[in-house]
Amino acid sequence: MAIFPFDIQAREGKTRTGVLHTPRGEIRTPAFMPVGTTGTVKALYMDQVKAAGADIILGNTYHLMLRPGAERVKRLGGLHKFSGWSGPMLTDSGGFQVWSLAQLRKMDADGVTFQSHIDGSTHRLTPARSIEIQADLLGADISMQLDECTNFPCTHEEAERSLTLSLDWGQRSLDAFGDRESQTLFGIVQGSNFADLRERSAKGVVGQGFGGIALGGLAVGEGHEQMCATIDMTIPHLPDDLPRYVMGVGKPIDLVESVARGIDMFDCVLPTRSGRHGQAWTWAGPVNVKNAQFAEDLSPIDAAVDCPASRDYSRAYYHHLFKAGEYLGPMLLSWHNTAFFQALMAEIRLSIREGRFEALRARLTADWASTKSSPKAEA
Amino acid sequence: MAIFPFDIQAREGKTRTGVLHTPRGEIRTPAFMPVGTTGTVKALYMDQVKAAGADIILGNTYHLMLRPGAERVKRLGGLHKFSGWSGPMLTDSGGFQVWSLAQLRKMDADGVTFQSHIDGSTHRLTPARSIEIQADLLGADISMQLDECTNFPCTHEEAERSLTLSLDWGQRSLDAFGDRESQTLFGIVQGSNFADLRERSAKGVVGQGFGGIALGGLAVGEGHEQMCATIDMTIPHLPDDLPRYVMGVGKPIDLVESVARGIDMFDCVLPTRSGRHGQAWTWAGPVNVKNAQFAEDLSPIDAAVDCPASRDYSRAYYHHLFKAGEYLGPMLLSWHNTAFFQALMAEIRLSIREGRFEALRARLTADWASTKSSPKAEA
Repeated sequence: MAIFPFDIQAREGKTRTGVLHTPRGEIRTPAFMPVGTTGTVKALYMDQVKAAGADIILGNTYHLMLRPGAERVKRLGGLHKFSGWSGPMLTDSGGFQVWSLAQLRKMDADGVTFQSHIDGSTHRLTPARSIEIQADLLGADISMQLDECTNFPCTHEEAERSLTLSLDWGQRSLDAFGDRESQTLFGIVQGSNFADLRERSAKGVVGQGFGGIALGGLAVGEGHEQMCATIDMTIPHLPDDLPRYVMGVGKPIDLVESVARGIDMFDCVLPTRSGRHGQAWTWAGPVNVKNAQFAEDLSPIDAAVDCPASRDYSRAYYHHLFKAGEYLGPMLLSWHNTAFFQALMAEIRLSIREGRFEALRARLTADWASTKSSPKAEA
Repeated sequence: MAIFPFDIQAREGKTRTGVLHTPRGEIRTPAFMPVGTTGTVKALYMDQVKAAGADIILGNTYHLMLRPGAERVKRLGGLHKFSGWSGPMLTDSGGFQVWSLAQLRKMDADGVTFQSHIDGSTHRLTPARSIEIQADLLGADISMQLDECTNFPCTHEEAERSLTLSLDWGQRSLDAFGDRESQTLFGIVQGSNFADLRERSAKGVVGQGFGGIALGGLAVGEGHEQMCATIDMTIPHLPDDLPRYVMGVGKPIDLVESVARGIDMFDCVLPTRSGRHGQAWTWAGPVNVKNAQFAEDLSPIDAAVDCPASRDYSRAYYHHLFKAGEYLGPMLLSWHNTAFFQALMAEIRLSIREGRFEALRARLTADWASTKSSPKAEA
């Protein structure tokens, strides 16, 4: 297995900024990965994603194995060729989505059997099958180990049993991954919000020799404060020289506070999901363009974001497009949000390099304080 | 009222190719106008519409007067600024859409009262109000007279009564339009499929002094052959030096056969509507990308069309996007279809200039024979 060189170029407190070097290109960190669930970042052209500043996107094993099918993607040349994204790509293992199916899955020690949400057909994921799909069939540059996500909240006993299973599946994932020369595999730390379990999981995962470490079991309804606390209890047990990735996070304030704690990578559907529902994320905070106050507002969504969608269309036009149910509304707003999240990461990276991250953090967390998620508020 | 200079540069048989000069730019004819119903050409960015080769787009009075409201568009700077289209724009009068409302409208000699399909609110269109909306509030470069569209089929008596009303409304539209220096107004010939009525209507409309002549009451279920016959019975009564516009037409074969009969302008929602439903229009005829045969087809939609959507994405990817219900499917296919329709018009223009239109027509009508609409087949 390749361990991609991770060049940390500047630090401020626990933050780090640098470059993760992959055979398909450089990933500037801290990095936010737009989510391309089914081989498309929803409502965006890939050149918009690239121009917005994204170095890497994420693909979803669960969705792609069901439709169009992982073997089919392989026959069509792999996910990069299929989707038209030529840069680095990370895929999730499918574990999180299968876990989300709740009543439609059945876990055992070797994997999980589940029913497709599309047609009810039965499928099975094991650590080895997930690696085969991600690394062989989709052709991910970064694969994720199959793990089990626990419900939040859960008991100490449940979390302990689950992380033990995830550690076992991590080892099976590594074994299946073998000695691929140009691809890497990340492990996943679980343990819910129990400090002793996060420590045990982190030490176990680190000892297994992955190319990067992810924190799983977050963004599942624990709320902003608990997310921060969980990161805090995990980071001390991670090596300095591997990239750290918080999966499924998050809102802009979550990104800032995670970076402050030493996180390097993120993914979240929020920019495009919000974009489809009329919510813009801006330097001034969230804005719902469907609100009547914008019906005759000629100002742009956020002139400080260097993207046509942010700068060249009036809020009045956005308002109209969403009221009329036009495609262009979600298209433009997903584009703006994607560009804003990338602009935020670029500013975070620059602020670390210039030794002013804490000042930036203080300003943004004050401005965005009202956007903090409460526990289970969005579970 | 301005009469835009119409420079006919080449002819072959009854066909003509040239340039209609407007203060906002040149319109190469024969021209196909993409439809921007509510201030957006559905699922396209305006720069894609422009790059595809469109010189002019169409806006809809009915939709815009209801939402966001014509006065609001005016306060926001007019439809060009609002929508981001800086080239020439034609608006319809609202008459056709109101006619389509059937049970929700009430005609009288002075206009039509109707209920909004959005919220049931009551509105009224008169010839003068339609002109006010189009020319003053939306700021159309080319406005259309308010007319009454007749059902197809209808009796000679109904068609006669209706065209008499439309002639009266045409004069009221002209009176309301006044002496605007940089905008023009087109009249509309009605008369269903009765040769004597089309002649009477054409002579009446021509005598009123419009800046262009439209043929109305087509693309309402009469079928391809009847459409051609109606054009044939009308053209002899139109002056050579004014642009001729067939409203709401049509399929590629309709465009070819209409141009052959001396038509200069078209508009239709077909490229974008088909694009949202998985149907591609290509030089080889229509292709439904949802068909299973394309699931692993790596060929592009139509490599002969110089558009990224036509050339750079596989049919397999299109198939997947439509099966998965992804935004990008309609986005790409509406883009391709728009580019194909523009490519068709460009080739038609060039073929007239090079004296080979009849050869092109023979080839295309043979290839596309199966696409001819039957009467009422799509009414």
